Amino acid sequence: MRYKRSERIVFMTQYLMNHPNEVIPLTFFVNKFKQAKSSISEDVHIIKGTLEKEKMGTIITSSGVSGGVSFKPGMSKDEATRIVEEVIEKLQEKDRLLPGGYLFLSDLMGNPKLINRIGKMIASIYIEEDLDAIVTIATKGISLANAVGSVLNLPVVVIRKDNKVTEGSTVSINYVSGSTRQIETMVLSKRTLKEHSNVLIVDDFMRAGGSINGVMNLMREFKATVKGVSVLVESKEVEQRLIRDYTSLVRLSDVDEYNQNFNVEMGNSLSKFE
Amino acid sequence: MRYKRSERIVFMTQYLMNHPNEVIPLTFFVNKFKQAKSSISEDVHIIKGTLEKEKMGTIITSSGVSGGVSFKPGMSKDEATRIVEEVIEKLQEKDRLLPGGYLFLSDLMGNPKLINRIGKMIASIYIEEDLDAIVTIATKGISLANAVGSVLNLPVVVIRKDNKVTEGSTVSINYVSGSTRQIETMVLSKRTLKEHSNVLIVDDFMRAGGSINGVMNLMREFKATVKGVSVLVESKEVEQRLIRDYTSLVRLSDVDEYNQNFNVEMGNSLSKFE
Repeated sequence: MRYKRSERIVFMTQYLMNHPNEVIPLTFFVNKFKQAKSSISEDVHIIKGTLEKEKMGTIITSSGVSGGVSFKPGMSKDEATRIVEEVIEKLQEKDRLLPGGYLFLSDLMGNPKLINRIGKMIASIYIEEDLDAIVTIATKGISLANAVGSVLNLPVVVIRKDNKVTEGSTVSINYVSGSTRQIETMVLSKRTLKEHSNVLIVDDFMRAGGSINGVMNLMREFKATVKGVSVLVESKEVEQRLIRDYTSLVRLSDVDEYNQNFNVEMGNSLSKFE
Repeated sequence: MRYKRSERIVFMTQYLMNHPNEVIPLTFFVNKFKQAKSSISEDVHIIKGTLEKEKMGTIITSSGVSGGVSFKPGMSKDEATRIVEEVIEKLQEKDRLLPGGYLFLSDLMGNPKLINRIGKMIASIYIEEDLDAIVTIATKGISLANAVGSVLNLPVVVIRKDNKVTEGSTVSINYVSGSTRQIETMVLSKRTLKEHSNVLIVDDFMRAGGSINGVMNLMREFKATVKGVSVLVESKEVEQRLIRDYTSLVRLSDVDEYNQNFNVEMGNSLSKFE
């Protein structure tokens, strides 16, 4: 089968998009298209140029034995702003406020199109970190953690609040919930996270930060280094937060449960984009 | 900014890949590139031709007011076979068998690259169904359900086994676990699934089918129609299965807990590909 340049570009673009943050040997394309390496390099150059023009990331070329090309995703500040605005708009819909100052987020977390865009945004913030895994807490953080892990080409590790036979041997810790001050348990399957990993913690909602603080303690048991914490929604209704260094997409404040009023504003994630 | 054909093709390919099963008005590309509709149509034609040549799906063109182009993902039998073989290889790794005949799957479910490919495979099987949502059970089904939902551009609805304030008002049912014969509860937030939806149920593991039977009962409460059931692993160690019509990627059999032996073979999903 012969391929024209335009056909090669269609295939290579989709292939690189579907394999973000992964080195693809140039020989893979050379063999597939039976074309000289120089032609393939030119194709890559066109793809790279367009991605950069559109601020959608770039293509990194590495040489040597394990050399090749890899798609490094990126995001423009415009697109990041559009995402934050869309989230704010959705959160301002009626009847989202739940007892205890929580927000109903299940529909957002179950909207793959939106969550994949948010995941790409969070991934763009941490793409320069040398990460080994994305860590999240069951249940609602999972879809977002997966979206981030897909873009960064990293495994996703799910911490549970209950122990199940399907987890195999586990490590567990007790922690005090920041909001309710109750003692709760967190469990992580030993086999899902290698010791001494660099991790990014991703979750849907953070109030006082008790859960995330629990995750950090659990990470210590795995000798892991927490390179970052990123949440979709942070609640400002907290006097003393247990976590200092984190990014949030949006911030919830002025929660008035009686009148079902609250305020949502941009979080600090957006400041990471130029 | 002027765009050459090759640049337009890079942008359009990535855009269509990132918006599967969604109608993109041709005017979106016409306005972006300031090009005649006929040139854009030619670009689409090139992309469509390459996708079909590679058996990665096709581009559907619809006319009328809401007309446009949409990427309909597909998968070749070769790629589907490679996926199933990779899953079988991974499942045959040592020490996967857990007490009670369960398999350790958390690492697979937390491998976004693999799960996205499996999700695309499941999506290809059900792409002709008129679906409104993907339904799964917390926790381990979520990543796979999200992968399927991403490709089909559908919301993902997560059923929980515990009730949380963050779910808002819920509907719950009791069901009998097929394996343990114990009574368990399933809870679904009312707001996450519209009544009379057509749903595809996706999960990681099915033994007797008690959980999935529970999901089907819960779906009845939402007046939903179950259009299909798809699981990653089915266990053959069951005399009477509660679910008849389903697809599975792989089948587990001959489980010998004492000697840590078992057999994994291809499920019936592969027969859906030509």
